[in-house]
Amino acid sequence: MELTLAQLAEQLNVELRGDGEVRISAVAPLQAGCSGALSFLANPRYRRYLKTTQAAVVVLSEQDAADSPVPVLVSDNPYACYARAVRLLYPLQAAPTGIHAAAVVDPNAYVDPAAWVDAGSVIAADARIGPSVQIGPGCIVGNGVVIEEGSRLVARVTVLAAAHIGKRVILHPGAVVGSDGFGMAQSEGQWVKVPQLGSVRIGADVDIGANTTIDRGALQDTVIEAGVKIDNQVQVGHNVCIGAHTAIAGCVGISGSTRIGRHCTLAGGVGLVGHVEIADNVHITAMSMVTHSINQAGTYSAGTPLTKNALWRRNAVRIKQLDTLARRVSVIEKNRKNK
Amino acid sequence: MELTLAQLAEQLNVELRGDGEVRISAVAPLQAGCSGALSFLANPRYRRYLKTTQAAVVVLSEQDAADSPVPVLVSDNPYACYARAVRLLYPLQAAPTGIHAAAVVDPNAYVDPAAWVDAGSVIAADARIGPSVQIGPGCIVGNGVVIEEGSRLVARVTVLAAAHIGKRVILHPGAVVGSDGFGMAQSEGQWVKVPQLGSVRIGADVDIGANTTIDRGALQDTVIEAGVKIDNQVQVGHNVCIGAHTAIAGCVGISGSTRIGRHCTLAGGVGLVGHVEIADNVHITAMSMVTHSINQAGTYSAGTPLTKNALWRRNAVRIKQLDTLARRVSVIEKNRKNK
Amino acid sequence: MELTLAQLAEQLNVELRGDGEVRISAVAPLQAGCSGALSFLANPRYRRYLKTTQAAVVVLSEQDAADSPVPVLVSDNPYACYARAVRLLYPLQAAPTGIHAAAVVDPNAYVDPAAWVDAGSVIAADARIGPSVQIGPGCIVGNGVVIEEGSRLVARVTVLAAAHIGKRVILHPGAVVGSDGFGMAQSEGQWVKVPQLGSVRIGADVDIGANTTIDRGALQDTVIEAGVKIDNQVQVGHNVCIGAHTAIAGCVGISGSTRIGRHCTLAGGVGLVGHVEIADNVHITAMSMVTHSINQAGTYSAGTPLTKNALWRRNAVRIKQLDTLARRVSVIEKNRKNK
Repeated sequence: MELTLAQLAEQLNVELRGDGEVRISAVAPLQAGCSGALSFLANPRYRRYLKTTQAAVVVLSEQDAADSPVPVLVSDNPYACYARAVRLLYPLQAAPTGIHAAAVVDPNAYVDPAAWVDAGSVIAADARIGPSVQIGPGCIVGNGVVIEEGSRLVARVTVLAAAHIGKRVILHPGAVVGSDGFGMAQSEGQWVKVPQLGSVRIGADVDIGANTTIDRGALQDTVIEAGVKIDNQVQVGHNVCIGAHTAIAGCVGISGSTRIGRHCTLAGGVGLVGHVEIADNVHITAMSMVTHSINQAGTYSAGTPLTKNALWRRNAVRIKQLDTLARRVSVIEKNRKNK
Repeated sequence: MELTLAQLAEQLNVELRGDGEVRISAVAPLQAGCSGALSFLANPRYRRYLKTTQAAVVVLSEQDAADSPVPVLVSDNPYACYARAVRLLYPLQAAPTGIHAAAVVDPNAYVDPAAWVDAGSVIAADARIGPSVQIGPGCIVGNGVVIEEGSRLVARVTVLAAAHIGKRVILHPGAVVGSDGFGMAQSEGQWVKVPQLGSVRIGADVDIGANTTIDRGALQDTVIEAGVKIDNQVQVGHNVCIGAHTAIAGCVGISGSTRIGRHCTLAGGVGLVGHVEIADNVHITAMSMVTHSINQAGTYSAGTPLTKNALWRRNAVRIKQLDTLARRVSVIEKNRKNK
Repeated sequence: MELTLAQLAEQLNVELRGDGEVRISAVAPLQAGCSGALSFLANPRYRRYLKTTQAAVVVLSEQDAADSPVPVLVSDNPYACYARAVRLLYPLQAAPTGIHAAAVVDPNAYVDPAAWVDAGSVIAADARIGPSVQIGPGCIVGNGVVIEEGSRLVARVTVLAAAHIGKRVILHPGAVVGSDGFGMAQSEGQWVKVPQLGSVRIGADVDIGANTTIDRGALQDTVIEAGVKIDNQVQVGHNVCIGAHTAIAGCVGISGSTRIGRHCTLAGGVGLVGHVEIADNVHITAMSMVTHSINQAGTYSAGTPLTKNALWRRNAVRIKQLDTLARRVSVIEKNRKNK
């Protein structure tokens, strides 16, 4: 798609500083900009590339605008503005509609005529596929699953357990929604499986990353509220509830029955034990282990810093002795006071 | 399925306190109980809901029984009793038998007439599928794989390398059994792949979670003994042996040739390096790193506690200096003694 | 395949000590060796099995050769020599060529006549499958993907985003290449998806493990250079670059735009935050968190040692107080000096 700068400024509802007739048909990084390309500056570590950019236009904040050698789209949120510009320049291709000859759709499933089911996908009985839904190749949609308008299963996605998928949800390849929760009772040294009866409810505008797994509830449903964004290889246990507009980075593990608030962020590799509650607006940094509820908004961390291995070995021994060390310091302090 | 309380008590072999004619047809959480529903109390954090429950019957231990406002099934293991009650009230649906028209079964594979192979599954030569096995949609069963009676590949499961799957095993969506182990020799700065020739042997009553991966052995087999339960997104390296009735939570990683005993539990996110041995009845808490063998039963832990980020930053600096700090304390102590 | 020891020694280009007429047709561990089997000793922990091995021949270093009770192939790199011997004794089976009747190939895709596409695979428009490529069952190859000569998608692999796969690459089951990166801009408390436009370029002789995910770049490509070996369940974010001959063990997570040098090793469970750079020949030990760039070759570590749970609890409390403890020690030292 080719647009003039004037058209872009109008559709993005931002101020243009520069020639409105310039034509834009691509996006590029600041350091690799070229004629016809829109670029942006959001992360300060890339500011050094601004002065010499060859881009045709740059999306910038007011404070950076004066430094641009080329036309500017001024936004108070350059990254979000850039995201919208990309969508204008690279509109989503209209998906086909219908059912591929090599898809298998149960006669008791309903597929909207304006939906698309690609080759190798299997749609079971009582599933309902809404309008403008795209089921990519190799997907499995189980009994009673509902997928609302405009959602997209990219490829090789599995949705089971009569899960309810809201509007405009994107499920990336290898994602599994509605697998059994890890519910087991111990009895005479063996594990007895607790049948998992709940489902999964996913709100509108949720993204579920590649090879991410979301278990069905044991009794009540696992719930992912609207606008939640989940990266790849994340594990969400049964009966978890994730509040609206929370973002969860790759390799996070969330144990069963844990509740996460709204507008939280969990960085990569974070782990949460089960049955804890996390307040709204909580941010957990990478690879932290969360073993207790968090009642107060803020940023929380755990973990030890990377060092050269030889130093780490020496310090690791001391961590094992830390309680003893603290007691030794207390003894010294006490002896001093007693003098 | 609807049962009277008298029938339930008899089939579960527990004592009923209350009206044996009450009819039960569902299960529900204690706080959401209703007419016709069975509930249970196992986790003490939910005891507060007992006094006001609307459930028709509650499975309880003797010590809690007196507090119930409704009929009680008295069990010394309420959670396991509940699990069995669920199975009575929600019996597994009889699977169909036969081979879906959209499945692909090699002429040299054997599929028992009482097994089911769903659409989109591919069964390779010399595979043997036993009676009452359910192969869900989109599964891949490779050459020479054996799947014994009553096992279930839920959907989109891959089993390769002539793996042997015992009776009543459940493989959840996206699981991969029999992928190549990560065996490589270094030669002149490059990696030479070591061909992986072993297989995987999985005992009876094992559960393998969604998107879990279990590598084939390099020479001898990777072995998962009977009754082992493995959650989602777990990685089991080549030649690992996991003892019977051990339970492994989500996101655990087990490096090659490690041996884990019987009746162990590994909590979420635990990692084990290769070639270590873990005794029976060892329990490892969440996200711990295991770098040495453990010869003694008990509970083991590693990791640092979550704190506010500002405090964590100050403490993290000190962890880097911990060996130095300990030496400084030793100097102080020595100076004191020398006085 | 059966070979004499003389043939093996010649083809491996190593010295034979023993009877060249002995026939070898299998490999076995040192402790399970038998007539006709080749074994090896590389890991010193298995040296105790050498004296009593029943193998027909053992691949050994010069220093161990005198201890062997059976014929020896002398190599200065026994493990790599063993790997090559295995390939000679167990040559890869010639794959079939052609397209299985139950595969779906778009008329605008190109599949070399010497390639193989197995049942249940779906090849989209403008994909190009080179000679001797094996596409196993249940794979998805998206629009414009290029797979070069000799590569192998084992089973149920997904490759999207017009990714370019070099020669002799192996993609293990469940791997996903070319899923969308986790790019989002925040706007008024909600997340705006940043369309992902880049691709993935994978060099020759790369291995990608089971259920590993490699995201497409946001603007420029995600790059995996030649000879990189990646284990199972690894997550590689958008715009990551991994240098040639680097090896990455299971469950590693690499955040977006991070650059890893050549000849590095990342042990299991390591996590790297985004936008950092790791020099060549850097080795990170298991489960370490990398939050800063590393400019110098060497071995680096983080994490706390495993202890009995009771001791860990006491020490964990002290970690929270570590900065305070260090300040207390400083006060003691200062008071001593002031005396």
